[in-house]
Amino acid sequence: MLDPKRTIDELKELRALTGDENGAQRVAFTPTWARAREFLRSKLAELPVEVHQDAAGNLWATLQGESEQALLIGGHIDSVPNGGWLDGCLNVLAGLEILRRLAAQGKPKFTVRLVDWADEEGARFGRSLFGSSAASGTMNPEELRALHDKDGVSLPDAIAPYDIDFDSVLNAREELEHAAAYIELHIEQGPVLESLDLPLGAVLGTFGVERHTITWKGQAAHSGSTPMDKRRDAFLAAGKMAHEVYEITGRNGGVSTIGRCSTLPGIVTSVVETCEISLDQRHLDLQMLNRMWQEAQDAAARFAQEGGLSVSFGNLWRIDPMPFHPELIDFCDEAIRETVGVSHRLPSGPLHDAAEVARAGVPTVMMFVQSLYGISHNKIEDTKEEHLLSSVTAFDKLADKVLAWLATRPTETRRAIGAD
Amino acid sequence: MLDPKRTIDELKELRALTGDENGAQRVAFTPTWARAREFLRSKLAELPVEVHQDAAGNLWATLQGESEQALLIGGHIDSVPNGGWLDGCLNVLAGLEILRRLAAQGKPKFTVRLVDWADEEGARFGRSLFGSSAASGTMNPEELRALHDKDGVSLPDAIAPYDIDFDSVLNAREELEHAAAYIELHIEQGPVLESLDLPLGAVLGTFGVERHTITWKGQAAHSGSTPMDKRRDAFLAAGKMAHEVYEITGRNGGVSTIGRCSTLPGIVTSVVETCEISLDQRHLDLQMLNRMWQEAQDAAARFAQEGGLSVSFGNLWRIDPMPFHPELIDFCDEAIRETVGVSHRLPSGPLHDAAEVARAGVPTVMMFVQSLYGISHNKIEDTKEEHLLSSVTAFDKLADKVLAWLATRPTETRRAIGAD
Repeated sequence: MLDPKRTIDELKELRALTGDENGAQRVAFTPTWARAREFLRSKLAELPVEVHQDAAGNLWATLQGESEQALLIGGHIDSVPNGGWLDGCLNVLAGLEILRRLAAQGKPKFTVRLVDWADEEGARFGRSLFGSSAASGTMNPEELRALHDKDGVSLPDAIAPYDIDFDSVLNAREELEHAAAYIELHIEQGPVLESLDLPLGAVLGTFGVERHTITWKGQAAHSGSTPMDKRRDAFLAAGKMAHEVYEITGRNGGVSTIGRCSTLPGIVTSVVETCEISLDQRHLDLQMLNRMWQEAQDAAARFAQEGGLSVSFGNLWRIDPMPFHPELIDFCDEAIRETVGVSHRLPSGPLHDAAEVARAGVPTVMMFVQSLYGISHNKIEDTKEEHLLSSVTAFDKLADKVLAWLATRPTETRRAIGAD
Repeated sequence: MLDPKRTIDELKELRALTGDENGAQRVAFTPTWARAREFLRSKLAELPVEVHQDAAGNLWATLQGESEQALLIGGHIDSVPNGGWLDGCLNVLAGLEILRRLAAQGKPKFTVRLVDWADEEGARFGRSLFGSSAASGTMNPEELRALHDKDGVSLPDAIAPYDIDFDSVLNAREELEHAAAYIELHIEQGPVLESLDLPLGAVLGTFGVERHTITWKGQAAHSGSTPMDKRRDAFLAAGKMAHEVYEITGRNGGVSTIGRCSTLPGIVTSVVETCEISLDQRHLDLQMLNRMWQEAQDAAARFAQEGGLSVSFGNLWRIDPMPFHPELIDFCDEAIRETVGVSHRLPSGPLHDAAEVARAGVPTVMMFVQSLYGISHNKIEDTKEEHLLSSVTAFDKLADKVLAWLATRPTETRRAIGAD
């Protein structure tokens, strides 16, 4: 029988084992991370599951079913430095509890696999989703080979002591060969569910991101001797943009953030000649995301023209949105409603391993549980205990619904991912 | 007979003597500055004038008249490093030419004195108007005693080799004892006359300045997981302010400049928690200046309230406006119209020695000659030669008009400044 209280006890046990007064310290490829995994392995050892680490350092526990076709339940036990007690490991320990419940019921019709992804956070090398992007095949190892941590240790050298051969990481793709569906539970890390006073939500997918710099250039001029109508003021354009991104987002949905602004010459007695801002736009729909970025560029050019300025754009990063599977979203909604009476659908702003699995073509959905204060990546990250209990129950219901759904599908339409 | 062409020749002579490929190098209290002054003294030696340096290092040339009451003609031969060829020395050499013209006509009714103020620019110690503020008595020597240049030389030590005893600088106040009027010619250092295609303008006074920081504080939040309506975005308030200062200045006149903007945490993936801007507001009218700053504070508080932010203000500097003398402004206008047909009245954004003399109660006016591109403090600073010629002619006419005006005034209403 499912025991959600045990999951909370195990989360607290893990916190005591791998945290300190500054929060969770389970940074990937460190001794504390290894200790967390030993803890997980010791729990798995009590179950009739096969356990192994794949070529990218992901830890897999497989409850063999009648069919090779598998439901995957994923999470990550690694944390940022001084992190929260729930981010990542809630998924892993809730998945462990589901494996226990299923194993007690005998051999399941489909194989069920728990995966603890390696280095979801990317805290040490600035590159998140290490293990899941290797498994999905979206990783370009050559981009990662040159990464070093702040002490100068290269990524290949850092992972070698954990039995990961950098040159073989893409072999992790074979783990998805029989993947038929993927589910993941996670804290929201945002304020939406708390503001609606709802414990749980069904996640529609992960936002795509357009991330750019916008730079306006005008003319430096003396603050005392230059009349207002003779100015070519780069900060004025940036100021107009501050308001405009709210307008653009209001029309199109998604989110847009100006996170930094710099001014040159940047002195009290001169009109700003050069002003650069960063713009981060996110949307669940690719077409809408493209439109948002186009509208931002159009507005930036219009403000440049109004102010006698030039404008240029610099690309920082982009990624496509990854919508989750419509039927799995419906099941997630049902599982939530059956557990707590009311559900809510919402997109995920942060990226997750689930997006990598979905990008590989596996039907995927995530469930969010409310975060207090919208805060994560911090020791004060928290979720009410009653919500944690409900999340394990609802997530277990979701697993059952997806397993039932797999049984209704002809074998040939269940997604089977080849290693190449 | 006045020979404006000679003034231009002497300006070029001075440039060759004290400039290099990077521009003028007549930084106060340096050998090059001393060389510039030797050049001036050699020219004055040909005239029937008494020459001495006062307690603050100002150089005075006195053409004794029938009355002790004196018309002062001021300028400064010092420059910023890599400065322009006209800023400051145009005044001095135009004044020299007027002394020549008056001396040739015999003993004038009133005394006429040319003053070359010491260290108007303040380039080395970051404190402008050294000599004129000593003469006006507004200088607080204790604030200056601790100043050092970038090589660690203190201001008192730097001026000692030039026969200036720091402890006695305020004795320069005695030079204004019989000052009855003060006139100064200067390049505009701004774009107004050029944009109007006018060679000359009468200056209404120097702007007062309110200079402050404005700091908004909201809440850092993840750029992906925080909906737009849940944000407390400090940059949005700063952006609104960028536009608002143009509105405020449009209503009240003067100028307002946001010169720098900083953002914290200042990263691409976070809503801005803290945003600080500098605001420099200038106006010729004290009441309007006060109103502008009050309206800016009101707007900043309104934007804070709209965005769920706190706001605070930091004082950087302030100075009162210094309007010039109404009758002298009229004479300046007349002199310009008689010379080039059309005049224009405009305020001075930058401060000048004239403001210090006016602050001491001496009837004062300045005349501006057009600057090309509005640029100064740079080797490309320039003014058309025909405009320079007209400026010397018009400035000479102004001197005559002010001398005539002094003759119409009862002695007791002529301003006489005591040394204490």
